[in-house]
Amino acid sequence: KVIEEINVGLNRCGVEPGKPAVELAEKISKSKGLIFEGVLGFEGYAIWIKEFKEREKACKECYRKLIETVKEIEKAGINVNTVGAGGTGSFNIAAEYPGINEIQPGHYAIMSASHLMIEGIPFKPALTILTTIISKPTETRAVIDGGVKTFSLMLGNPIVKDIEGVTVSALHVEHGILKLSSNCSRNLSVGDKIEFIPAYSETAINLFDKVYVVKGDEVIATWKVEARGRVD
Amino acid sequence: KVIEEINVGLNRCGVEPGKPAVELAEKISKSKGLIFEGVLGFEGYAIWIKEFKEREKACKECYRKLIETVKEIEKAGINVNTVGAGGTGSFNIAAEYPGINEIQPGHYAIMSASHLMIEGIPFKPALTILTTIISKPTETRAVIDGGVKTFSLMLGNPIVKDIEGVTVSALHVEHGILKLSSNCSRNLSVGDKIEFIPAYSETAINLFDKVYVVKGDEVIATWKVEARGRVD
Repeated sequence: KVIEEINVGLNRCGVEPGKPAVELAEKISKSKGLIFEGVLGFEGYAIWIKEFKEREKACKECYRKLIETVKEIEKAGINVNTVGAGGTGSFNIAAEYPGINEIQPGHYAIMSASHLMIEGIPFKPALTILTTIISKPTETRAVIDGGVKTFSLMLGNPIVKDIEGVTVSALHVEHGILKLSSNCSRNLSVGDKIEFIPAYSETAINLFDKVYVVKGDEVIATWKVEARGRVD
Repeated sequence: KVIEEINVGLNRCGVEPGKPAVELAEKISKSKGLIFEGVLGFEGYAIWIKEFKEREKACKECYRKLIETVKEIEKAGINVNTVGAGGTGSFNIAAEYPGINEIQPGHYAIMSASHLMIEGIPFKPALTILTTIISKPTETRAVIDGGVKTFSLMLGNPIVKDIEGVTVSALHVEHGILKLSSNCSRNLSVGDKIEFIPAYSETAINLFDKVYVVKGDEVIATWKVEARGRVD
């Protein structure tokens, strides 16, 4: 079974909408051993637009290209069973768009700090990374035992959970530098544990072998990150 | 045995040079069960200065602070056996500076693309990452099966090895976008294998479970990345 990717504007992979997509669908459906299952489009550049209305508009422009192409493929006599689209920033827009019958949000179960920055996402971040303060050289600077190898650099620095007045000012390889404001809501010392919400969970979770599932103060399960290292 | 880190200008961890460093050394040497072994300083901000002469000047300013403090600690009657400094961009400057007896370059065995950008480093990059072209949607764009989870984002995009006219224009999570110029020295197609030199090997090697050691065209060993995931 083959799903054909259509380039709806991200300009990454995918065949162009319209004629090239129809021709590829015909080629697939005529190929021995292959079954043409459907199409997908990914509006990856549009899902990060902060304002919901603007995001909706940009996403719908992508879906329009996708659905028009679906209709052309069907006109060529080929069944299109699956029509996939959407990301974590657009799952609700994609889900309501006529003709889309599968959504593909990757983050929604754990979310990221970067999703807090865009409007209209009803989920809270579930994934946090626990670090320890290993140094507090001045009143305004503390150093944690987490850096690029802990959080990744994708979409910026992590944000601290449940403490006011603390920001990450830099990530080094194995160190993170915290800037402490004078009205910091916790008096932080060496040895203190702090939780961070990574800017982009997908590239952070991949840096760990396991995830601890916590309910209240209790660890109720330990999950292996099965896909870790599966980039080869 | 304790090595005391002295902040020579990076403003990360480390006690301030001079009096605070001497007081800490005294505290350590008087503590039961601890032996004061020596000091280290890391001129992390200076080792990336492109021009060698400027880099040398900035590094020596850091070493001056370090060695002056060593002398003050010795004046207080404490032996300083180990005096460590230097990084991959400054190993030769540190090694020749009077009073430094240990250098700590982390990258020199494998190097990175970013080390090619600074003057006066006599080693070549040894670490490459092999990827495959999975899509070539246009004559000027190809997509590889390597992205942020393969190269990390530290210090920029990887550079291609042994092919002219190809640059990485973007890294997505699992995809890399290549820009192909019209004078590209190889006619690249889907399925072709391409080697890249990561911008910063330290955060890239950490994304893999093993490293293949190659001599000519032969894999002569497979090494496990023992420290992978040791961020906890």
